[in-house]
Amino acid sequence: MLPPSALSAAPRAYQTLLLFGATGDLAQRMLLPSLYGLDAEGQLSDATRIIGTARSEHPIEEYRATARAAIEKAVEPERLKPDALDRFLARLSYVSLDATDTGGYARLAEAIGGIEAGLAIFLSTAPSLFEATIEGLDKAGLTGPTVRMALEKPLGSDLASSREINDAVARVFPEPQIFRIDHYLGKETVQNLLALRFGNLMFEPLWNAQGIEHVEISIGETVGLEGRVGFYDDTGALRDMVQNHMLQLLALVAMEPPARFDATEVRDEKVKVLRALRPMDVEEVKKHTVIGQYVAGAIGARTVPAYAEELGKPSDTETFVALKAHVDCWRWHGVPFYLRTGKRLPFRRSEILIRFRAVPHSIFANRGAVLQPNALLISLQPDENITLTLMAKRPGLDREGIRLQEVPLDLKGDVFADTRRRIAYERLLLDLLEGDPTLFVRRDEVEAQWEWIDAIRAGWKANGMKPKPYPAGTWGPSAAIALTERDGVSWRE
Amino acid sequence: MLPPSALSAAPRAYQTLLLFGATGDLAQRMLLPSLYGLDAEGQLSDATRIIGTARSEHPIEEYRATARAAIEKAVEPERLKPDALDRFLARLSYVSLDATDTGGYARLAEAIGGIEAGLAIFLSTAPSLFEATIEGLDKAGLTGPTVRMALEKPLGSDLASSREINDAVARVFPEPQIFRIDHYLGKETVQNLLALRFGNLMFEPLWNAQGIEHVEISIGETVGLEGRVGFYDDTGALRDMVQNHMLQLLALVAMEPPARFDATEVRDEKVKVLRALRPMDVEEVKKHTVIGQYVAGAIGARTVPAYAEELGKPSDTETFVALKAHVDCWRWHGVPFYLRTGKRLPFRRSEILIRFRAVPHSIFANRGAVLQPNALLISLQPDENITLTLMAKRPGLDREGIRLQEVPLDLKGDVFADTRRRIAYERLLLDLLEGDPTLFVRRDEVEAQWEWIDAIRAGWKANGMKPKPYPAGTWGPSAAIALTERDGVSWRE
Repeated sequence: MLPPSALSAAPRAYQTLLLFGATGDLAQRMLLPSLYGLDAEGQLSDATRIIGTARSEHPIEEYRATARAAIEKAVEPERLKPDALDRFLARLSYVSLDATDTGGYARLAEAIGGIEAGLAIFLSTAPSLFEATIEGLDKAGLTGPTVRMALEKPLGSDLASSREINDAVARVFPEPQIFRIDHYLGKETVQNLLALRFGNLMFEPLWNAQGIEHVEISIGETVGLEGRVGFYDDTGALRDMVQNHMLQLLALVAMEPPARFDATEVRDEKVKVLRALRPMDVEEVKKHTVIGQYVAGAIGARTVPAYAEELGKPSDTETFVALKAHVDCWRWHGVPFYLRTGKRLPFRRSEILIRFRAVPHSIFANRGAVLQPNALLISLQPDENITLTLMAKRPGLDREGIRLQEVPLDLKGDVFADTRRRIAYERLLLDLLEGDPTLFVRRDEVEAQWEWIDAIRAGWKANGMKPKPYPAGTWGPSAAIALTERDGVSWRE
Repeated sequence: MLPPSALSAAPRAYQTLLLFGATGDLAQRMLLPSLYGLDAEGQLSDATRIIGTARSEHPIEEYRATARAAIEKAVEPERLKPDALDRFLARLSYVSLDATDTGGYARLAEAIGGIEAGLAIFLSTAPSLFEATIEGLDKAGLTGPTVRMALEKPLGSDLASSREINDAVARVFPEPQIFRIDHYLGKETVQNLLALRFGNLMFEPLWNAQGIEHVEISIGETVGLEGRVGFYDDTGALRDMVQNHMLQLLALVAMEPPARFDATEVRDEKVKVLRALRPMDVEEVKKHTVIGQYVAGAIGARTVPAYAEELGKPSDTETFVALKAHVDCWRWHGVPFYLRTGKRLPFRRSEILIRFRAVPHSIFANRGAVLQPNALLISLQPDENITLTLMAKRPGLDREGIRLQEVPLDLKGDVFADTRRRIAYERLLLDLLEGDPTLFVRRDEVEAQWEWIDAIRAGWKANGMKPKPYPAGTWGPSAAIALTERDGVSWRE
């Protein structure tokens, strides 16, 4: 066995990457541009091949032209190098495949040629096709210890359907070969949250109920339905955003220090948090969750139609959800985690706000100073940044009392100015090829997430809760404001 | 009695400021420019008058011309406003006085006219004149409850002589009317250290032996003897710098949280620290102090002569001292405070470095990351700034392990960019006029400082320790490096 250092210095990347859904939106906007970015930086070995597959027929030159156009659209001009792009496109091939046609998989296997050098499969197709796809792959010999399977969301629509999918995959792939993607985990700032927490002595003594007053996780979108009409209306904000991204962020904020930054330890700690989420009963769902659906309004100067109008019919699907969660453990006893996400909000913004408690006593009160509690803001969108807000004395003679002022200390600065912003998938695709599952979601995590989410949906049903209307361009129904204000907390705006 | 808010909104400033040593270096470089700065900002009331006094005779127009020249030299051109300067000079008058001639004080009293509206006296003369001056003032009726007395260092050369001076002053002025100046306390950054410590929840949990590995206080000068030949050779680095400024900084770093930011509470906490300084016996002085005297060398590209050459004779005076102090209390058990100061060092730099302990365990060790302990750097000279150094993840794909990197977060930034840098005396002179002694040194502090310093000097004598030579432009004798390296600590360079 190689020592770990040798392993990490020379990762054995799998040779072939097989992309299901290769003509889809995700592949065009994210996966192909990410793979090009890796290649242009020399991160792919010469032997790496990428095989796209989808239902439609495309001659390879046509597929490459499509890929070229997608990359040229997504990648900043200064990173578009003709040589690198040509080299990348030469790695691409394309096989048309109807996932439900078992005969097609043999042709696919033929195109792949062999899996001894490693096959990484990226499945971003409709969940209804998962079972058929996995069966087809298995029958065609495209499974086994040298095959890894990456799964894009949605992985089911509740615990039961998620289990079905996971069972189907598990019949063919053991858990260590399954790479469930939550692309938020590929974001630099999310990883930097862990670096900050565990790379510094500063934070850990305060990172608990004694030091933290509340945590706020917000994902705001300005878009409405876009092209996702059918899928979104069947899903809603809770399952589209909270069940996966937001609970993963919550788990990373709340987890105990893992012994090592590796797949088992990190995910063991995350799943402990997810299982410690306080289940909401019917009464609590009424008190601690708010759902909304946008009606016509304006975002900036642009008027936008109501959800029902975009959809073309009335709907009870929530396009906004706010909720108050608790993690029942020693560390977080009594600390609320406020989560809020929605479409047609005033800004596109994803962030985690850690609000520390106030100092126990102000020695400056006699000098008229007003203290604000410290905060750590982890911004994921539109820009990645981490800001620590401290109180400092404003220079001056203090004749009208000591003037203390909040000072934001930004992590994003000169030090990191020369590094380009990456697509989260770059990191995840490379980890998939090289076999590091740390930033992927384990089955027990997904199921703990669903279990908690299902109870909320059951509560909505039992309470007969329907989404409250909110004008597009506002922060959701006013009940969402009341949710935190009752606790004396204001959402960050 | 007025409520405190009314008091702070309308401080009753004393009407007359009497400057002893009005033709001296301190008055020219610091006091007159500071007073002009206050006046130009509207901080002096219309009634405020400034009376300068010194031994030499000057017609008032000549003194005003001298003052004008001093201000024009010291103040940035953009702050020199002819109207404001004329108004300021009109406040000035001058009375010649031989401090030892008791007859002169009557003329001074006549010039002052009356003390009912408050008289603040600033005494920056040779300590040998203190007693005569105070006696003269008293006999001329220039003492009493409406007179405050500010004293510049040096206040004695050891505990005994310091007591003599303090006793002499105390015969005439009760302690609350005595304002002992340590101009380091007037620096914005020193006050900001307190704002940071006690205005934020972040620091206090770590601000003790569990969280802090060591504290380093350094004051480096590039100058040599300058004009202070006789005084400095009688004094040396320990008494010129450590006894006052550096022990005050140490006390502010180490003190317990005062209940309020006011004169009694803050100084009560400082004196507790000064009294808890572990006294050094003869053996400890040998082990924990290093003294040096510069020989010829170069600072930058400029060659400079030896101390003895500047002085014109051999000397055993230390121009450099480094020492390791301990504060014997629960909070600081086992935490070394390293102090270092000297002349002809490579840079002019005053700073306090708080080095926190390493994290107890690195979860990133398996990923090849190297962690540096956190640090808080409080810079006083040449620029005032506070920097918190944290570890953060360097953006990247982490193929060769996770790259964590020290990131300095600076307090000095856009927020404070519009405020001008003040002379520390501006704040102190205004506090003197308005009667706030919080940033002045109380008698018990001075005496605790001397007591600790005297034991070190006694140790040098008992051990026969002489300063070791160090070339000008270096960081002192190599024994000073060894002092910390034995503990595994390197001075910040």
